[in-house]
Amino acid sequence: MSHINLHPVAGVYLGTTAAKIKKSGTEDFVVLQFVEEAITVATFTQNAFCAAPVTLAKQNLLAVTHQHNIRALVINSGNANAGTGKQGMDDAMQTCSLLADELGCDANQVLPFSTGVIGENLPMDKIEMAMPMAVANLAATHWKEASEGILTTDLVAKTYSKVIDIEGHTVTLTGCSKGSGMIHPNMATMLGFVATDAKITQACLQTIMTSAINQSFNRITVDGDTSTNDACTLTATQQADMPVIDSVDSAAFKQFSAAMHECMTDLAQKIIRDGEGATKFVSIEVESAHTVEEALQVANTVALSPLVKTALFASDPNWGRILAAVGRSGVESLNVDTLQIYLGDVLLVENGGRASSYTEEAGQAVMNETDITIRIVLNRGKVKETVWTTDFSYDYVKINAEYRS
Amino acid sequence: MSHINLHPVAGVYLGTTAAKIKKSGTEDFVVLQFVEEAITVATFTQNAFCAAPVTLAKQNLLAVTHQHNIRALVINSGNANAGTGKQGMDDAMQTCSLLADELGCDANQVLPFSTGVIGENLPMDKIEMAMPMAVANLAATHWKEASEGILTTDLVAKTYSKVIDIEGHTVTLTGCSKGSGMIHPNMATMLGFVATDAKITQACLQTIMTSAINQSFNRITVDGDTSTNDACTLTATQQADMPVIDSVDSAAFKQFSAAMHECMTDLAQKIIRDGEGATKFVSIEVESAHTVEEALQVANTVALSPLVKTALFASDPNWGRILAAVGRSGVESLNVDTLQIYLGDVLLVENGGRASSYTEEAGQAVMNETDITIRIVLNRGKVKETVWTTDFSYDYVKINAEYRS
Repeated sequence: MSHINLHPVAGVYLGTTAAKIKKSGTEDFVVLQFVEEAITVATFTQNAFCAAPVTLAKQNLLAVTHQHNIRALVINSGNANAGTGKQGMDDAMQTCSLLADELGCDANQVLPFSTGVIGENLPMDKIEMAMPMAVANLAATHWKEASEGILTTDLVAKTYSKVIDIEGHTVTLTGCSKGSGMIHPNMATMLGFVATDAKITQACLQTIMTSAINQSFNRITVDGDTSTNDACTLTATQQADMPVIDSVDSAAFKQFSAAMHECMTDLAQKIIRDGEGATKFVSIEVESAHTVEEALQVANTVALSPLVKTALFASDPNWGRILAAVGRSGVESLNVDTLQIYLGDVLLVENGGRASSYTEEAGQAVMNETDITIRIVLNRGKVKETVWTTDFSYDYVKINAEYRS
Repeated sequence: MSHINLHPVAGVYLGTTAAKIKKSGTEDFVVLQFVEEAITVATFTQNAFCAAPVTLAKQNLLAVTHQHNIRALVINSGNANAGTGKQGMDDAMQTCSLLADELGCDANQVLPFSTGVIGENLPMDKIEMAMPMAVANLAATHWKEASEGILTTDLVAKTYSKVIDIEGHTVTLTGCSKGSGMIHPNMATMLGFVATDAKITQACLQTIMTSAINQSFNRITVDGDTSTNDACTLTATQQADMPVIDSVDSAAFKQFSAAMHECMTDLAQKIIRDGEGATKFVSIEVESAHTVEEALQVANTVALSPLVKTALFASDPNWGRILAAVGRSGVESLNVDTLQIYLGDVLLVENGGRASSYTEEAGQAVMNETDITIRIVLNRGKVKETVWTTDFSYDYVKINAEYRS
């Protein structure tokens, strides 16, 4: 994944430094500064054991008013500041204060993010030292450095950047994400930071954030273990020369929303493709479901089945495991005689058993690919949902068994 | 696990033979015959893709009347007769008919069970040949042979047998189970057959079956993949010299129920201990929950977390993974500041983070054991539930990736 063409976003400045929180000594401390007019929305992990920075970021977002927008993000990698109790909250607040003092804003105009090992206190002396260096480094062109500074066990940086035309006006979208396939949720785990210069109301931005997250970061799963630190922000700096997007019914809203969905889906899928130990990129499509809930229920049951995942690792078209996972997904009055299961374009299952047209050779050919689609047609309704996942390999066990040793 | 003292149960006869369904050529075909008075109750998989024999066994149990009890079980290993559509139902019916003809009963007085590979038709020629041989082999003393004949990838046979005293009367309980840690649900998977000579009504037997299954076979989990063929039967032959147990409030009921719970728990735990690839036997205890549902929600989330399981494999006291799993279990308004998590007797987590008394040495000492208890005290109510599981090892991936090759 190259960093060619990471377009700066007007009104966003990024600074990085090596705070030496990570043992490797590589850059691990990142600051994003926004112009006054910038509007920021965010989503956070649902984990009840959420980390101190998540708790504080949620609080600070609630304090936002028209005259008091979020002005900065501060992110460290190497330490998640999770499972750290009261000390963790104090440290997160202190981090925000240090940055606010540098930038001349209030501490609650800063959102903090941490990613790394759970259960160790933040090294505040290192953060105090790093802060002025990161601020001195602030520049609109530092997206590449920022995308690298937020990484933990990721093998590659994950970025997206595009300049689009919305009704004759030029709008830029640039973002980065981290997360090594969510196989290290105690390296707590998934972060996403997206910025655009679009002129858009807070309400419209929030609507787009909710739906885009739902169709991207909320549709990837490696092992079902959601982390204590997952968070994603979306900032619109209002600097583009365009009429404000203020209605969800406008053509501009629809164009911008589609572009943001593409951006978030790309950043989410790059996390799956970088899953350590992952040898396959697997799309689970559930079609003609009755509700979104049941579509996701089936898709996630198949995506998280260790038996399906080990079969994918072995490139084994073991359709019985897919069938059994669909069968146990808990969908009410599921009629197994009227559903179909496809591997790529190959029909695996119909009439409650192996399709008569199925051959092992055809299934094997699909399984030999790196990108694999499992399609389950429920024939119950009109809803379609897709989830992306990986296989389960020796390396998954190795990485997660040896992680702390 | 030795076969010493597998006490015969009056009114139960067992016969085995090698039908050559399994490639190994070992015994793979088992018949159990019951006296006329025997009462049989059973539970089956909830998987919507249940196998043909499960569908037929459920139908035949519905046809039971006082004058028309279940008279026999017929079990084959090596082929699950699952995902086999209409042909599968025809084959299961034909199997019951063949045995009914041999024993002089009706076909719907026979319950069929199959375990093995999914998606291949039963070799009916082999079953036809095997049937008279298995019947000729019927004897009250053949529990050992029966317990071996139902195995697939299991490393050891799993049996239980005890003679107990109920208010001065001697009652025998003997049973066997199979299932290689449920890590082979496409080897479809867990079966249990328990018999007793107790004199007991159908209603009382059903009550005990439901509660005992619920606290045993329904409390073990390896990878969350429930199979298409899971089934368990409990037969009471009424041959013991005792007053009939006909009230759930009687002392005899309580004694017999406790004995049956012990029997089923033992047979269930032996499946976990025989999980191929398993190096640990792990009890997840959730205490002071508000409801059974939330206790199981927490216990199963921890038990099925691949990150917790790989840490157990590595004997790594990685408490952050347990904390994160509890946090994402989805229990409503869970207060993470007032719960405790213990590893054995060692307090890991309190006040939302690592316990101040915790030391890595103390955690490591517990993790080095083979039998490990993770105890989560929710401090919300009075319910306690326990789930048993295993770790996740290289061998789990190896066995399941290479299974068909």
